[in-house]
Amino acid sequence: MSTPGKVSLEDKFGLFTDHWSPKIVGELNGQQVKLAKISGEFVWHAHEHEDELFLVTRGTLLMRFRDGEQRIGVGEFIIVPRGVEHQPVAETGEVWMLLFEPSSTVNTGTAGGERTVTELERL
Amino acid sequence: MSTPGKVSLEDKFGLFTDHWSPKIVGELNGQQVKLAKISGEFVWHAHEHEDELFLVTRGTLLMRFRDGEQRIGVGEFIIVPRGVEHQPVAETGEVWMLLFEPSSTVNTGTAGGERTVTELERL
Repeated sequence: MSTPGKVSLEDKFGLFTDHWSPKIVGELNGQQVKLAKISGEFVWHAHEHEDELFLVTRGTLLMRFRDGEQRIGVGEFIIVPRGVEHQPVAETGEVWMLLFEPSSTVNTGTAGGERTVTELERL
Repeated sequence: MSTPGKVSLEDKFGLFTDHWSPKIVGELNGQQVKLAKISGEFVWHAHEHEDELFLVTRGTLLMRFRDGEQRIGVGEFIIVPRGVEHQPVAETGEVWMLLFEPSSTVNTGTAGGERTVTELERL
């Protein structure tokens, strides 16, 4: 077994510029670590079987829920349980974030639609 | 369903000072998010069934493997696959890190011994 490699978040974020297209940067225990850059509003959606963690590394993520909202700043995370409708929003500028979720997770959940990304790039 | 809460890493790190005693700060999909402060050397160990992610938020983590080593700085992470022997070390001062691993993970893995923590605190 060779020595495992390490991953620099800053280096990986430097490799892409597109929004709402999560990139896979790590896998463990059937889960994936993804990085995403977002701007503006995403679609309302929920995931039937997956809880999702969002850890913000740049900007402030607004996460809207049907009965409230949270603003998540740098160094903060939120866990959205399965079945809970949510809408991620970057109100001003870009938000960079790390996602931690099962490998089966589709970005638009059960909502589907044109913003669904089916083949995630690995960085 | 009420609006999920958010978690500030800095706030949670401010709640404890002990070393080598991971605190649970989040749970999702059978996995746990833990925070740990470390200083000096830990025991060599491996986990039979669990892959482990270490994301450093302060200091530099030295991770020794039987055939090499990695130094993981702030904003970097490493994934140690199940079965791979490793020894986490904070060479100078404290290292603060976020762990992501299955809820079943025991800190000393199959090595056991006096540094095993069986009841993790939730913050």
